[in-house]
Amino acid sequence: MEVSAYAKDCPSRQILDRIGDTWSVLVVIMLADGPQRYSALAKRIEGVSPKMLTQTLRGLERDGLIGRTVHAEVPPRVDYELTELGRSLLDLVGALEKWAEMHIEDVQAARAAYDNPGVKV
Amino acid sequence: MEVSAYAKDCPSRQILDRIGDTWSVLVVIMLADGPQRYSALAKRIEGVSPKMLTQTLRGLERDGLIGRTVHAEVPPRVDYELTELGRSLLDLVGALEKWAEMHIEDVQAARAAYDNPGVKV
Repeated sequence: MEVSAYAKDCPSRQILDRIGDTWSVLVVIMLADGPQRYSALAKRIEGVSPKMLTQTLRGLERDGLIGRTVHAEVPPRVDYELTELGRSLLDLVGALEKWAEMHIEDVQAARAAYDNPGVKV
Repeated sequence: MEVSAYAKDCPSRQILDRIGDTWSVLVVIMLADGPQRYSALAKRIEGVSPKMLTQTLRGLERDGLIGRTVHAEVPPRVDYELTELGRSLLDLVGALEKWAEMHIEDVQAARAAYDNPGVKV
């Protein structure tokens, strides 16, 4: 099979979905500096529900992008960290975040113009 | 306000959602070579419904990433093309797609191992 994200059954499209997912991107960037606990992730990523965060972490683990270590403490401590595969995403994901932060104003101006076609913005 | 995609009300997070959206990524890559008609986009991007494609194109237009030209023909011809802002995304989006296509096998192996923890894969 030709590898092409345009083909509906090509797995590269599923991978594109994963690395395009905003929660996943934010988790990957947060793990760039080293392992983090669940509670630290939940605190830093505003607006993510526990359910969404858990689902995001499971998806990233399933895709081999992060690893999970359970420490035998009471209560048990769970750390998440990037795998080698996850680390290979860092440059890309960082560039994505940088683009988003750099072009906020352009996009906001475009949205205002689109939503109010008669008004000069 | 500090610009941070971690903050729930920061617009950069919405932008991250847009450029992370798989359909949007595929449309942007298809427009890299020049303007395309709606029908060409619909044909190339397998599995996208007309509703999803229309919604994706509107979202990209609203964000100022693509422009839309209606030609006075019968039936009317509608072309889509990247704006300058949209072009600034090309390197990033191309790198994203390349990563996805390069790492398919790693991700698939990780998924198989995760789904069948007792089985050697």
